[in-house]
Amino acid sequence: MARIVMKFGGTSVADMTRIKAVAARVKREVDAGHEVAVVVSAMSGETNKLVGYAREASALHDAREYDTVVAAGEQVTAGLTALALQAIGVNARSWLGWQIPLRTDGVHGKARILGIDTDDLTKRMKDGQFPVLAGFQGLGPDNRITTLGRGGSDTSAVALAAALHADRCDIFTDVDGVYTSDPRIVTKARKLDKITYEEMLEMASLGAKVLQTRSVELAMNHGVRVQVLSSFVDAPGTMVVDEEEIVEQQVVSGIAYSKDEAKITLVKVADRPGIAAGIFGPLADAAINVDMIVQNVSEDGKSTDLTFTVAKADLDRTVQVLESRKAELDYKAITPDPNVVKVSVIGVGMRSHAGVAQTMFKTLAERGINIQVISTSEIKISVLVNEEYTELALRALHTAYGLDAA
Amino acid sequence: MARIVMKFGGTSVADMTRIKAVAARVKREVDAGHEVAVVVSAMSGETNKLVGYAREASALHDAREYDTVVAAGEQVTAGLTALALQAIGVNARSWLGWQIPLRTDGVHGKARILGIDTDDLTKRMKDGQFPVLAGFQGLGPDNRITTLGRGGSDTSAVALAAALHADRCDIFTDVDGVYTSDPRIVTKARKLDKITYEEMLEMASLGAKVLQTRSVELAMNHGVRVQVLSSFVDAPGTMVVDEEEIVEQQVVSGIAYSKDEAKITLVKVADRPGIAAGIFGPLADAAINVDMIVQNVSEDGKSTDLTFTVAKADLDRTVQVLESRKAELDYKAITPDPNVVKVSVIGVGMRSHAGVAQTMFKTLAERGINIQVISTSEIKISVLVNEEYTELALRALHTAYGLDAA
Repeated sequence: MARIVMKFGGTSVADMTRIKAVAARVKREVDAGHEVAVVVSAMSGETNKLVGYAREASALHDAREYDTVVAAGEQVTAGLTALALQAIGVNARSWLGWQIPLRTDGVHGKARILGIDTDDLTKRMKDGQFPVLAGFQGLGPDNRITTLGRGGSDTSAVALAAALHADRCDIFTDVDGVYTSDPRIVTKARKLDKITYEEMLEMASLGAKVLQTRSVELAMNHGVRVQVLSSFVDAPGTMVVDEEEIVEQQVVSGIAYSKDEAKITLVKVADRPGIAAGIFGPLADAAINVDMIVQNVSEDGKSTDLTFTVAKADLDRTVQVLESRKAELDYKAITPDPNVVKVSVIGVGMRSHAGVAQTMFKTLAERGINIQVISTSEIKISVLVNEEYTELALRALHTAYGLDAA
Repeated sequence: MARIVMKFGGTSVADMTRIKAVAARVKREVDAGHEVAVVVSAMSGETNKLVGYAREASALHDAREYDTVVAAGEQVTAGLTALALQAIGVNARSWLGWQIPLRTDGVHGKARILGIDTDDLTKRMKDGQFPVLAGFQGLGPDNRITTLGRGGSDTSAVALAAALHADRCDIFTDVDGVYTSDPRIVTKARKLDKITYEEMLEMASLGAKVLQTRSVELAMNHGVRVQVLSSFVDAPGTMVVDEEEIVEQQVVSGIAYSKDEAKITLVKVADRPGIAAGIFGPLADAAINVDMIVQNVSEDGKSTDLTFTVAKADLDRTVQVLESRKAELDYKAITPDPNVVKVSVIGVGMRSHAGVAQTMFKTLAERGINIQVISTSEIKISVLVNEEYTELALRALHTAYGLDAA
């Protein structure tokens, strides 16, 4: 007998037919003798509808009222899922954030979980009752409903799994696992049986929107074994686990990409101390996050080219900020370029293997793909290339690192 | 300065345009210096949608989960209304049943209010904050959401007005007040400026669905002055008040009708002691409510005809129950008749005026309308007539009692 937290996302509870399918899926684990706790999102589209209403009601909305409005979505699904479970003979009951309570800080709209009171839940689970939690929501210090931010139900589920010392946290979604690369582009992409927390974090931060970054961090910090799997297909998914659990670690686990970034080059910036602060200080003040930064060696000792990336959505604003400081920064020109893609090779194995970067550079060079910017971390190498090479680069790298399906 | 509870029904908060109009309406009272508390229903259609989901989830649904699901409707409106008020500069905040708390008994789906903790509300109102309560919902003894049954938001509003010792409870709806008769039938019907609680109760129980019966009872018991008015038209509505407040009381205040009843005659029932119990006992056991009952004097001392009415929806079931007891009850035939209407003349003035019934009987007789059954209470005379005379009877009585608009 295991203790399992099962979380179902919006598309998995999109309508009553889907909710009944969810109930049947949960019943299988119940019938197998497991202690199961369920976490549900709002029916897909519902949260967007409620957010739309809130925005229409007030442009500058009070986050406390916003939370009260949007949390209603998960409340409905929790009640309906409990009903659907009861209808097939499972002793289920719904729990709202304030009932458990799942306590959070007071940062409405993106609250952080402080703790989950599991005494009552655990007792009832031992007595054969199966809790269905409304995800995404909690109770703030002011006795008002808080929400955990977009994708917060993943975080609810992992936090619950940690608090209940669950053997596993199954995240049911509309994809059947984590792939070595985007299967829509790389047809030879394979579903991974296992992936480490660290790799999953890099994947998530690169836009592989399978799991919310925060939920992966939480799982890593509490050692919660997370499984990503499909609620539409009956097959094992991908286990997100500690590195130690993976016996035969591949050097590279996946090739990810992100088209959300844009590149900016400041041409012939004065090469003097404090210039980087002069550029990035004003951007930080404008709440613009900078990702990759490359500064070339100065040729003449007087000026240099500085290239960096920002979110594509921030590109125009970034140019404005820099132009307003042109006199002070003393550069010759700004060259913005939104047509770039960041391609990343990810794998904890590269910590102990040399030559991983070299394979990447060589592979791209062979295809005539020019690397514009490079950045590396312990388990990731990212390069910025022209967007039109996205598919070519992904497929070539996938093959080069031996990831292709047989 | 007055303290006012303003309640807005489903059609008044049907969409964001309407919710903004509600906010503007509330702001007028706020700007006039009044202490205002707002109570809102779910957006029209929303409760039906949620009820539909709950029924689809489970035919025999757990009322506790049902309540969790349907209460979400009022939660959303409360948050949105608070946001809309904030957007026009009113310091508003939403309150859910469990936050106040508005305590109820544990009868989920049709809970009764036990008490409202108003300390915090009152303090905040004195400090210039305007509460927006989610109607229809409360907190049960098991720390779960309860709902008050259909139209429960009226009851929430009146209970809040009583607890806050409000000067007035304004119920905003899609009609502009209480009329002397149904204006769709009686074109000369007039809007009443005032009506007594007792008359309103009779009107409500006869299906004039302006106010929920329970809310009128509650208002009467606590002396809450209720005003029924339109949120679409800017005009005074009808005040529902104590008899003493009405200086010039008309003898008859209104002519109401109900097509929800059906008539059943048991022909030649044995006329012996205990026969009524033998008939109505089994009906009560089958949860069938009987309204009007007439037993003719026995002609031969052995048998009599017995006529009574039940809800039209219960007619078939009633016939079945009685047929299953034919041997025992010893009647000759059952004559069911769904084609009847109950027409009622209502007025507290008839307590002190003779001849009210006579006017009714004479008026109907002059139009050739045969009265099938008569029942009377202190402030009401009801007759059962053939349904096809509905319009004729209403208009003739409206004129006969001097209620026609000039």
